[in-house]
Amino acid sequence: MTLREVFIGMELPPLVLPGITRKTLALFAGASGDHQPTHIDIDAAHAKGREDVIAHGMLMMAYLGRLLTDWVPQERIKSYQARFVAMTPVHAVPTCRGRVIAIVDGLATVELSISLADGTTVVRAEAVVDIREPAASRQAAPGAASVPAPSTPPLLIERQGSFAAGGTVLRHPGRYDSTRAGPKGQTLHGDHAFAVYQVPVGARKHPLVFVHGNGQFSKTWQTTPDGREGFQNIFLRRGFATYLVDSPRRGAAGRSTEPAILTPAPDDQFWFDTFRVGRWPDYFDGVQFPRGPEVLDQYFRQMTPNTGPFDLKVVSDAMAALFDQVGPAVLVSHSQGGGVGWFTAMKSAQVRGIVSYEPGSNFPFPEGEVPAPLASAAGPFAAVGVPREAFLQLTRIPIILFYGDFIPEAPTPHVGQDQWRVRLAMARRWVEAVNRHGGDASLVCLPDVGLHGNTHFPFSDLNNVAVADEMSKFLAAKGLDQ
Amino acid sequence: MTLREVFIGMELPPLVLPGITRKTLALFAGASGDHQPTHIDIDAAHAKGREDVIAHGMLMMAYLGRLLTDWVPQERIKSYQARFVAMTPVHAVPTCRGRVIAIVDGLATVELSISLADGTTVVRAEAVVDIREPAASRQAAPGAASVPAPSTPPLLIERQGSFAAGGTVLRHPGRYDSTRAGPKGQTLHGDHAFAVYQVPVGARKHPLVFVHGNGQFSKTWQTTPDGREGFQNIFLRRGFATYLVDSPRRGAAGRSTEPAILTPAPDDQFWFDTFRVGRWPDYFDGVQFPRGPEVLDQYFRQMTPNTGPFDLKVVSDAMAALFDQVGPAVLVSHSQGGGVGWFTAMKSAQVRGIVSYEPGSNFPFPEGEVPAPLASAAGPFAAVGVPREAFLQLTRIPIILFYGDFIPEAPTPHVGQDQWRVRLAMARRWVEAVNRHGGDASLVCLPDVGLHGNTHFPFSDLNNVAVADEMSKFLAAKGLDQ
Repeated sequence: MTLREVFIGMELPPLVLPGITRKTLALFAGASGDHQPTHIDIDAAHAKGREDVIAHGMLMMAYLGRLLTDWVPQERIKSYQARFVAMTPVHAVPTCRGRVIAIVDGLATVELSISLADGTTVVRAEAVVDIREPAASRQAAPGAASVPAPSTPPLLIERQGSFAAGGTVLRHPGRYDSTRAGPKGQTLHGDHAFAVYQVPVGARKHPLVFVHGNGQFSKTWQTTPDGREGFQNIFLRRGFATYLVDSPRRGAAGRSTEPAILTPAPDDQFWFDTFRVGRWPDYFDGVQFPRGPEVLDQYFRQMTPNTGPFDLKVVSDAMAALFDQVGPAVLVSHSQGGGVGWFTAMKSAQVRGIVSYEPGSNFPFPEGEVPAPLASAAGPFAAVGVPREAFLQLTRIPIILFYGDFIPEAPTPHVGQDQWRVRLAMARRWVEAVNRHGGDASLVCLPDVGLHGNTHFPFSDLNNVAVADEMSKFLAAKGLDQ
Repeated sequence: MTLREVFIGMELPPLVLPGITRKTLALFAGASGDHQPTHIDIDAAHAKGREDVIAHGMLMMAYLGRLLTDWVPQERIKSYQARFVAMTPVHAVPTCRGRVIAIVDGLATVELSISLADGTTVVRAEAVVDIREPAASRQAAPGAASVPAPSTPPLLIERQGSFAAGGTVLRHPGRYDSTRAGPKGQTLHGDHAFAVYQVPVGARKHPLVFVHGNGQFSKTWQTTPDGREGFQNIFLRRGFATYLVDSPRRGAAGRSTEPAILTPAPDDQFWFDTFRVGRWPDYFDGVQFPRGPEVLDQYFRQMTPNTGPFDLKVVSDAMAALFDQVGPAVLVSHSQGGGVGWFTAMKSAQVRGIVSYEPGSNFPFPEGEVPAPLASAAGPFAAVGVPREAFLQLTRIPIILFYGDFIPEAPTPHVGQDQWRVRLAMARRWVEAVNRHGGDASLVCLPDVGLHGNTHFPFSDLNNVAVADEMSKFLAAKGLDQ
């Protein structure tokens, strides 16, 4: 068994170092006892025909070692060999990088390098790292009993924050009077999306913008109900900037320009069934869902109401505004967020790819090609028609749809499960339509690739790291993880 | 002018290193060319009468240098002197620490040390760091024109996540049927608080739990309306774990067990006045609020509605449950969150101190000592009575209240401003009552300590770093920053 988070192609968080100054070199000379003039004496460098002093190779090695030891404990590094390919002049700004290029028998080979701001590579190295889980590792090195269990390494966040995007403004006529109450002359800003973002150090080019499903909010992508890391942390660790969105009229984006009546109607069991955890009160056999009353308590508390009517136009308008702020990015959607994603991509060319988990509504077909509604125990399920030109935008980006397990092939009277039979059937037709028009869409049922037992929330299920690996493969295949 | 984030007493983020193994030392020998047997040959160590090999001093120096250069660019380090006070044996787990002990003329003196897991200090050092802003720095070092402007260093997050705390469960009678819609036999989990937390590497002992005010949610403490860092990031950088709460029936904690009717009533201008940015459409002279339509747009979009009635009992119950999960911590409140904080502290002994920005409601007095309501243009303002024993809990923890500027001394017809006259007056009486009963409460009007122009949101105003410094002083004085 290997450490959950290591995969081929994985990049270590780059280590961007401050520029090397004369002071750095003088300090290092003092520290190491290496007082060679070539590092600290510009006259001596001139005498050697060099323009200026150069950095200690040991300093560079120490930097590269630091990249590795920031990632795994030193004792996991089984071998290490380095080659100095160029000298590092004073004032250089080195960046250390590493990439897993092979995994064999629990040993990962990591390709390492240091490059400078002008692109010169100055050191190349290769390390072999033991990525077996603690038990196996202890077995291999019996003396290491006191070694702390490998824990999740810290996250190195370059910047993080939050902002509202898009939205509209209601204006009440009249003149505002600061001595009286009432709406006269006042405004209300609402219908925006709200995003919390984190950018890791050395982030990849395309951020991931995560959009939740019905009844949910950004929590979908955070800590799982049993306290494991969700896609937010998993993909931060894989070097992606993450934007977690609350869509208009939900969660942190609660301010709506339309009224709403909120009624606390008990429906936890309905969601348990609809999210395919089981058939209440039973869990499906082999379901990848953690057990326990505490877990279920957290799971049910992930729900949050609409604070205004769900309006696909309002939501996708705000999402398009958000993408225009973020720039080129990949949209990762769940369930109702799937429909939001298709309509966002039709409005903003900044959507450069879509990964959609269990989309189940608002599949857009070119007008004239809309399939008939499909009957299910949850009622008829219809697709929507859009102008052909809008639809064609969806043929210009790579798209993948993932579905979990326990989706019945034949009709069943159980409402929660049966609706997914027709949603999946419609999804297949939609993927065919996109590809028929020259697009690049694919649909993966996770059991078909060996991942069994997933619910409607594969990204927070017990096997969510394996689920993330499937997403990583797609991003790599489509060049979206540069 | 000095770098905004450096203050006396400030601790650098500790650098916790992986244990030093024989492999570390062998690698370092190879890297540095220092092949002294004392580091790599246990037989040679034995011959010298030592139990085992010891680490290269240079390795330790490199570690300590790394603590500094993780914090500021190398070129800002003006001097550096170290003393080796003990040897570091193989297998030691070193931690590097630093603390700013003096700031004179833009030069900060930083006391540095390395200690091992058993408490032994092995290296002590002192560095002088130039903390002047870039322009001055460039002037002082004319050759450094190509030096990149000092930017905010990355955040090193040990772990981060989210969870729901407390809450209740509604149960509908009957038996759930998975083939039919309807509430029969179903539950609804609601009225919980929701927290997003981040724990920096080497966190201080007491986390900070941040509670928003009326109409607001956790956004209060995040990015400011003009994109600067709020208290979330500022105090993460100062080494505190942060918990950002959405209180029950607000934002991410939207699921309520009571119904609500949400009406989009335009009220932005009312909030502009109430939050003492100015008197709409005018800004107060010298107000520490950034200008521009974009800023105002973000500011207004920070509002979010209640998704159920505000109920102090429901909110403080959930907050107490949250504190019982977090453990001993400091509660940082804003406005309506102030009252939430007092009632939480009366319910949970885990509240070890309170910092309250502009509390303006639900001041609890011992029954029989409740002052008469105070009249204002916003209506009468009343305090609340609580059992004496409950009140006394508030005398057992240090408490500080901060208020901003533009609070009138004499009555005015302007509703937004006048309410703060009586809220502040009640706060003064409350602080007197706490201290009369043996407590440790203080009230600071920021203009009295030289901070002018603050609104109702001092923690996101333009001078929020100076505002944070006042909070840091309180935490240090009360031993809450250990």
